[in-house]
Amino acid sequence: MMATTVSTTPSGVTAAKAFRASGVSAGIKANNSLDLALLVSETPAHAAAVFTTNRAQAAPVLVSLEHLKRSGGIARAIIVNSGCANACTGDEGLQAARDMAAETARLVDCSVDEVLVASTGVIGVALPIEKVRSGLPAALRALAADQGWAAARAIMTTDPFPKEASTRVTIGDRDVSIGGMAKGSGMIEPMMATMLGFVTTDAGMPPALLDRALRAAVDDTFNAITVDGECSTNDCVMLLANGASGVEIAERDVAAYGAFVNGLRDVCRELALGIVRGGEGATKLITVTVTGAATRADARKAAKAIANSPLVKTAIHGGDPNWGRLIAVAGRAGVEFELSRASVLIGSTVLFKDGRPHDEAAPQAAEYLKGKDIDVSVGLGAGQASSTVWTCDLSAEYVRINADYRT
Amino acid sequence: MMATTVSTTPSGVTAAKAFRASGVSAGIKANNSLDLALLVSETPAHAAAVFTTNRAQAAPVLVSLEHLKRSGGIARAIIVNSGCANACTGDEGLQAARDMAAETARLVDCSVDEVLVASTGVIGVALPIEKVRSGLPAALRALAADQGWAAARAIMTTDPFPKEASTRVTIGDRDVSIGGMAKGSGMIEPMMATMLGFVTTDAGMPPALLDRALRAAVDDTFNAITVDGECSTNDCVMLLANGASGVEIAERDVAAYGAFVNGLRDVCRELALGIVRGGEGATKLITVTVTGAATRADARKAAKAIANSPLVKTAIHGGDPNWGRLIAVAGRAGVEFELSRASVLIGSTVLFKDGRPHDEAAPQAAEYLKGKDIDVSVGLGAGQASSTVWTCDLSAEYVRINADYRT
Repeated sequence: MMATTVSTTPSGVTAAKAFRASGVSAGIKANNSLDLALLVSETPAHAAAVFTTNRAQAAPVLVSLEHLKRSGGIARAIIVNSGCANACTGDEGLQAARDMAAETARLVDCSVDEVLVASTGVIGVALPIEKVRSGLPAALRALAADQGWAAARAIMTTDPFPKEASTRVTIGDRDVSIGGMAKGSGMIEPMMATMLGFVTTDAGMPPALLDRALRAAVDDTFNAITVDGECSTNDCVMLLANGASGVEIAERDVAAYGAFVNGLRDVCRELALGIVRGGEGATKLITVTVTGAATRADARKAAKAIANSPLVKTAIHGGDPNWGRLIAVAGRAGVEFELSRASVLIGSTVLFKDGRPHDEAAPQAAEYLKGKDIDVSVGLGAGQASSTVWTCDLSAEYVRINADYRT
Repeated sequence: MMATTVSTTPSGVTAAKAFRASGVSAGIKANNSLDLALLVSETPAHAAAVFTTNRAQAAPVLVSLEHLKRSGGIARAIIVNSGCANACTGDEGLQAARDMAAETARLVDCSVDEVLVASTGVIGVALPIEKVRSGLPAALRALAADQGWAAARAIMTTDPFPKEASTRVTIGDRDVSIGGMAKGSGMIEPMMATMLGFVTTDAGMPPALLDRALRAAVDDTFNAITVDGECSTNDCVMLLANGASGVEIAERDVAAYGAFVNGLRDVCRELALGIVRGGEGATKLITVTVTGAATRADARKAAKAIANSPLVKTAIHGGDPNWGRLIAVAGRAGVEFELSRASVLIGSTVLFKDGRPHDEAAPQAAEYLKGKDIDVSVGLGAGQASSTVWTCDLSAEYVRINADYRT
């Protein structure tokens, strides 16, 4: 069952069997805040990951890619620090990420290639590797099956709350668990970088199939959210599957694979929506659905354009049922669009249809916009395809957070 | 010579010979504000225009396109109203735009196809055509060679100041004048739409060559600015050339054509920068130059991505020399990018070069960012091409203007 809210989920990455986690303070952040998270599978797990498409990939991204390749998709541990992104830090940064993995491997007693690394925080500042090194033994000692919550807190930067989710999927007569944690408050934050997601499962699955499952789940979840249209140097989502449930899923098990992907998608969606709800300055979660598109790619492109439009986001922030802005963005999104067949709904209220305004319904839509969870739907009038993305509103607080961050 | 500031230019669209203009109040806007501008050439002029690429083109855009086509690029008059965009208004809106042109043609005594139409203001509201009709005789009576300033005020919506510019170009032993006016404060504003530009010249030129000159000038000026990445339903730039200077420029007059395009580009740049300086909530004009790109298209793409990045715009608003955000946007812009050869300059201060931070220079850059005119330069390390675009900073005032507009 899905947790009803992200913040009360009892455990994320340790919901699945035979995973332990911890979160400790290594002194990278000020005030003894938790800043080092360790996640360990009791046995070697199959691993899949997706990384930022930003060409300025951070050192931990490069090292994790290298390790996944060398290990052939096997991992025992993930080590994550917050407070420093270790991005744009040159050769020294690369060495620091390697050292972080090596020290973790030594303590966990596995091959260095079986350790994945992630960092989040300020860009362009050297990683204080000695602090990481001295914090690691405490992280190892703190590892426990009920410490997923501590890990979820240790990866936070400007996040207003931790993001955890878990679910259980019945396959045949057995259950597998899938759980995860995530952080992120802008696609990239001030000089704080990054969206990170970590998901574990006690299902067993070959690495190639696990990779396919992760990509399928991420496409409609983490890749369907936006806070400010930015994409960081450190973004990643990692998935470990250790098989501890005794359930092995092979490619030919179509029903089992489908059930697993659905569960994985549920967990990823919950985590992704948590990031949007906790977006910088956000006061509302906005679900943007585009229908009537010529292709699914067009639908996604138009939905992203709407979700990133500062005029749409400020209108919703101000409670203004400003359908003209939605039509104008759809028209400039570079997709097939027929004004005479286009439509705009805010909640279930039709404000524009078949080329005509229905402003008489504006008061009803304005009332609806006072809520916290807002659905907007735009029909392009060009076909049958649709897509949904999630975003938050744009508030003066977003500007304050990002203008004043280092001053 | 270029006017030194946009606001003190004595006359814009009436700087060239044999053009008259007026701006009157027709009651479309509240409080007797000027809201109807008329521009007339004493003789039929050659006309060129570029229009919004938004697929939700407004009625006046459709009508002007139709008239330009039917007249073969000849125009006598341009009629513009503010306070209502006549966009997303269906067949009635189209009829209203036609009526506006027809009534103007009757009063000016020309063919309806020789009248171009533009509107700016609220989207989705019917144009009060009776107000336009009753205001037109006053606009005709007010026409004068020194009323360019009134026309420039009559086309304003949320603009904080009018935008006018003019220049004189010597061709052979004779001078031609080029002058213009523009409005716009967001690429698209609240439910107020649009950037409009109108330029006149007393040079003579065949329509096809005039069209080529306009496109060349617009590419590096109006098409190189962004306030919020939005593109309205009504955007247009129109150029009239009536030949009253006695100077005729033919395609074979390469030097004369080049001098004319340079002058036209100067006027368009001055108008375009005026729009950015008066952008919603703007406190700074930001010149973004991308160098070291593999192609000019890459350079423009990266420059636009930087100019539209809310994190870059808020950092500059806050005076934060946050080079990491510039690198992160360049990395995600979808262009060739080599981190190890990339660079960031704020003003003339190098903050990142050859893959390494130079944060020791940050205080100097922070001091520079206190100014009003900010240059930032990003080297992609991928080639030799470059491009410059202009934008403004993103302030809490932008959010307030756009969140509270209709409430």
